[in-house]
Amino acid sequence: MDENFLLDTQTAKELFSVASKEPIFDYHCHLSPKEIYENRPFENIAELWLGEDHYKWRAMRACGIPEENITGEGRWREKFEAWAETLPRCIGNPLYHWTHLELQRYFGIETPLSPKTASEIWNRANTAIAAPGFTPREIIRRSGVTALCTTDDPADSLQYHAMLRQEQGFGIKVLPAFRPDSALQIGAKGFAAYLGRLSEASGVTIRGFDDLKDALARRVEFFVKLGCVTSDHSFLRIPCREADEAEVDAIFRRVLAGETPGGEDQEKYMAALLRFLAAQYKSHNLAMELHVGPIRDNNTRMLHRLGPNTGFDSMGDCETALPLARLLNSMAEKDALPKTILFAMNPKDNCVFASMAGNFQSEETVGKMQFGPAWWMNDHLDGMRRQMTDLASLGVLGSFIGMVTDSRSFLSYPRHEYFRRILCSLVGGWVENGEYPCDRDALMKIVKDISFENAKTYFGI
Amino acid sequence: MDENFLLDTQTAKELFSVASKEPIFDYHCHLSPKEIYENRPFENIAELWLGEDHYKWRAMRACGIPEENITGEGRWREKFEAWAETLPRCIGNPLYHWTHLELQRYFGIETPLSPKTASEIWNRANTAIAAPGFTPREIIRRSGVTALCTTDDPADSLQYHAMLRQEQGFGIKVLPAFRPDSALQIGAKGFAAYLGRLSEASGVTIRGFDDLKDALARRVEFFVKLGCVTSDHSFLRIPCREADEAEVDAIFRRVLAGETPGGEDQEKYMAALLRFLAAQYKSHNLAMELHVGPIRDNNTRMLHRLGPNTGFDSMGDCETALPLARLLNSMAEKDALPKTILFAMNPKDNCVFASMAGNFQSEETVGKMQFGPAWWMNDHLDGMRRQMTDLASLGVLGSFIGMVTDSRSFLSYPRHEYFRRILCSLVGGWVENGEYPCDRDALMKIVKDISFENAKTYFGI
Amino acid sequence: MDENFLLDTQTAKELFSVASKEPIFDYHCHLSPKEIYENRPFENIAELWLGEDHYKWRAMRACGIPEENITGEGRWREKFEAWAETLPRCIGNPLYHWTHLELQRYFGIETPLSPKTASEIWNRANTAIAAPGFTPREIIRRSGVTALCTTDDPADSLQYHAMLRQEQGFGIKVLPAFRPDSALQIGAKGFAAYLGRLSEASGVTIRGFDDLKDALARRVEFFVKLGCVTSDHSFLRIPCREADEAEVDAIFRRVLAGETPGGEDQEKYMAALLRFLAAQYKSHNLAMELHVGPIRDNNTRMLHRLGPNTGFDSMGDCETALPLARLLNSMAEKDALPKTILFAMNPKDNCVFASMAGNFQSEETVGKMQFGPAWWMNDHLDGMRRQMTDLASLGVLGSFIGMVTDSRSFLSYPRHEYFRRILCSLVGGWVENGEYPCDRDALMKIVKDISFENAKTYFGI
Repeated sequence: MDENFLLDTQTAKELFSVASKEPIFDYHCHLSPKEIYENRPFENIAELWLGEDHYKWRAMRACGIPEENITGEGRWREKFEAWAETLPRCIGNPLYHWTHLELQRYFGIETPLSPKTASEIWNRANTAIAAPGFTPREIIRRSGVTALCTTDDPADSLQYHAMLRQEQGFGIKVLPAFRPDSALQIGAKGFAAYLGRLSEASGVTIRGFDDLKDALARRVEFFVKLGCVTSDHSFLRIPCREADEAEVDAIFRRVLAGETPGGEDQEKYMAALLRFLAAQYKSHNLAMELHVGPIRDNNTRMLHRLGPNTGFDSMGDCETALPLARLLNSMAEKDALPKTILFAMNPKDNCVFASMAGNFQSEETVGKMQFGPAWWMNDHLDGMRRQMTDLASLGVLGSFIGMVTDSRSFLSYPRHEYFRRILCSLVGGWVENGEYPCDRDALMKIVKDISFENAKTYFGI
Repeated sequence: MDENFLLDTQTAKELFSVASKEPIFDYHCHLSPKEIYENRPFENIAELWLGEDHYKWRAMRACGIPEENITGEGRWREKFEAWAETLPRCIGNPLYHWTHLELQRYFGIETPLSPKTASEIWNRANTAIAAPGFTPREIIRRSGVTALCTTDDPADSLQYHAMLRQEQGFGIKVLPAFRPDSALQIGAKGFAAYLGRLSEASGVTIRGFDDLKDALARRVEFFVKLGCVTSDHSFLRIPCREADEAEVDAIFRRVLAGETPGGEDQEKYMAALLRFLAAQYKSHNLAMELHVGPIRDNNTRMLHRLGPNTGFDSMGDCETALPLARLLNSMAEKDALPKTILFAMNPKDNCVFASMAGNFQSEETVGKMQFGPAWWMNDHLDGMRRQMTDLASLGVLGSFIGMVTDSRSFLSYPRHEYFRRILCSLVGGWVENGEYPCDRDALMKIVKDISFENAKTYFGI
Repeated sequence: MDENFLLDTQTAKELFSVASKEPIFDYHCHLSPKEIYENRPFENIAELWLGEDHYKWRAMRACGIPEENITGEGRWREKFEAWAETLPRCIGNPLYHWTHLELQRYFGIETPLSPKTASEIWNRANTAIAAPGFTPREIIRRSGVTALCTTDDPADSLQYHAMLRQEQGFGIKVLPAFRPDSALQIGAKGFAAYLGRLSEASGVTIRGFDDLKDALARRVEFFVKLGCVTSDHSFLRIPCREADEAEVDAIFRRVLAGETPGGEDQEKYMAALLRFLAAQYKSHNLAMELHVGPIRDNNTRMLHRLGPNTGFDSMGDCETALPLARLLNSMAEKDALPKTILFAMNPKDNCVFASMAGNFQSEETVGKMQFGPAWWMNDHLDGMRRQMTDLASLGVLGSFIGMVTDSRSFLSYPRHEYFRRILCSLVGGWVENGEYPCDRDALMKIVKDISFENAKTYFGI
């Protein structure tokens, strides 16, 4: 993993020397605006790496590490050693590459992590962390980030975003993203309680579906005032069932009155609300991100023990083509389809999404409909190559808005570097195979566009 | 993209020198027999390229080109320039390769198309088009085609096929293919009107299902008289539901009487009619092509504006294995399963179809059941490699009947060259990796068979 | 196909020199314990190769060979020649590689098989077979096998296993595997008759679901006494529907009384019984293998003519993620989820299964939940690469328990060699691309673990 890591042709090397200089716009991540605002330093490398990273937790569990040394009461040092024991077995996994890119880029450590080197790396990394340069903001700045979008609930006050906007010094845009999953999940336990919070945040008493729409429309406006350029939604199944407003209102009121909604009613409600939101996004020029496919919290025992987002999520395999076609068409028919980014959890959806995007392109925006980058369980070398090859084969790669970290970790920006290396390797390979001419200007434009420029233009930051 | 384009080993080069000399039998395309018969010259390169090619239209839309310069009132020159602006972004897309193969093979132009070279290429290509050699028939002849199958409705008079048969000079077989989709689509709006046309063409008054079968059987015979060797059908879902003749007749009569059929009734009707047709095909030794998976006309607004087949189709992802197994088995049980070619729109079906073909092989015909070539949205470098690798892994590649253009464009024959280069690259790679012995005779036979000979024997042309 | 077959890097060669020396533990095969016990020599190479191998039969049918020379009355010599005619067309198919690995390893024949060489190979191979070294036990011993698991019905007496255990000389463990498919298939014709055999074998009169559970529990114990370390199950669809014990008992009693169960009832019964069995496996520390996806006996005419397992099976494409999640979670909730190995028939399930395994890992066992090796129709070069790449990308390759033959043939052990070559090529490629450090100890451990050591530890043999 030297400077030419993954750059397997001369053209790839030349292109990466250009791509690597582009800034980062991380338009979808899960960083905490509070942590960015407060900017507290970290204690040690294990806290930074293992404090919240359920990717690593899953790998450790697959190696039989006791939960105590994963998310439990074990000491940071023990957890770090458990991770060092796990990592060498992760051959071919992106964790192997990410870990070493992070060691190299942030700590200057070139030594591969293993049980033999764990102690040395623990010491060197912690010495670095204790020195300046390792607060959240410093890490973000050192990473070449120009802007990032967090993930925020409509009921969120966005107070940290507001305070970050008022500060002069930081210079990096930290933008909220509108993620109304809690408002869409009408079947979830805390739905009524959530509506209470949304009422409070919006100042709208929510008694019917119209009130809900009013409340959410106000929150979209509020988010836009704080710089929001995108929205985000996650589904196992894509809702597409049609229902008129009166029926949806009746479903909504029954649930508010305490009824448990059936599957069809939930879908009608979700589809109707999503269509309403899409129109809002379009009128405010927000993008609509659709993350399709995860099955969350598959292990009930562990959910009760550790809560959600602790590494028990899986790749779904529901049919997506027809429901997605219906949903997007119902928006397009009313001229209420915003810029849309389709993220596939399961690589079987790559070609479906890449082809579906082609049905709703428009002269409004270059690449209005995007097949989004390889995400979550696809976010590895093979998955990124696959996503870009499928997009290139079925759509227009040159219009692609590129990579996001989708991460909770401040050290995850080398995933953009990883992506760019893979992009340059792919493009370089095509050139050296004679599949594309060696036109330096055209090639440099393509990799710069996909690394940063397309996303910048698309979101208008 | 020189003479060794995609030929990445010495063996590949040697094999291609053989494969490239084989004639073309394009057993599935959408050329107009009328245009072939009338043989009118083209006006300019934009008309040839952009007049009907919805692949290119989709790419242009993904780059934000206004519809005016795609299918609208824009001048040909402006459309050509919009295409030149789009193309360099299509890195990794087959359009990039097809465009340049066509420029090289038909126009002798080696310059890559881009905004900078658009003007030069416009002039050179149009000069060539104005000179002899660019009528439909001349293009077909120059392409090394020995026979081709168009796609024709049972109600079609086949008048242009008849006239082409009577001509002496052309020498290339232009055969009709029997495509009864309109007769199968009992739920479509124009169904009753269509039956009127079919009545007229067949001379059978259609009042019940037996009449319909009679009419279609007569049309099959008529097609066979004009040289037809294959039939074709397109489905999103494979119909397999069983129903007895009386029930199907009742469904059919209800629809004739003005009722709208439900989904189950449609499927019963389609499966029954398809089983009947299969028996006809078998008795006449026609092949049965099944194109599975497209979702058509996903964008209702654009359908109303531009009509069907204008670039708003998508890849479906319905389950196919069980319905296909049931449909084929129901035919095989009655010894009424014809030679069958399974085309997959979604690459997820590759392995399903390749394995399904293996269940119904027979000593009647070598490779009776074919997993057909990469088609439509799979018809790219990666898709063709995938299709041939999957077929080789799960079936017998040596029995494969090879490529079709599936195209509406007279310039699309280099797709056969593209396919043969990929085939030779794949086989050459296996040989040079030691996965197959360097037995020149065996290898030459394999690539000649797949390029042309297998299809010739299979269809008996 | 020389000594460096598939070893495309120097690292791959070095790693294979280690991997090739590891013994074989074939934890899932279909060898006959009776044939191993009786140890009768074979007559000729055609009997060995074509007597039971439905992979070869399918390939021959795809080349139009008459059934007479496949499974019919043809003479062995004619069948052999038909195979020699078929094989050269199987370029890119694992049969091509397996055939020649078998010729090289067991017969010392380096000549590729083709019509031209058929006669020479027939003579040389049969001469070898007539000499010592070609009984079932000798073949197994020469193959470096240390233990193998056959596939056995709960009602089986295991007499040959018992006799093999009592013998001193053989030295290779032949273990039964518990495969209760007949007890699970409540909708099958012979179900009641099967319960009679199970009653007899277990000594339990089966009148209700509790009796059935009692009978099966006793048989699990009996199998364990004879060395059983694993169980096995095959499904087209994964059963997951919940039902209480009373309902399942009622379903079971209705079927015993002669009723035909509906689809839902069958699923409830299967899920309930599987959950019970899983608890048994866990308490005895047996692994639970789940083979998911085949559609069997697709060709009814050929089923009636030749019976099951004659080469008319296909790859299914049902949804698997949600049902599998529910089934495994229902076991895990009661702490009754045993070590589990998920085998995918359709490569679309690779990523689903690799990610699902990650939800139920545990400190009980390293790699408790396994995404099993490429199996049946995936068991080829591309399929194995795919399975290992997907596992590496989504899980921990270093914990993988590796290959099985899944075969009925005594000559199939070179499939382990084939697998190891592919493993070493994959790992070697990563190392030489700079994706993993050239740490000889770590690498050797990885390939030894995956070749043999992990399986040995996992199953505790």
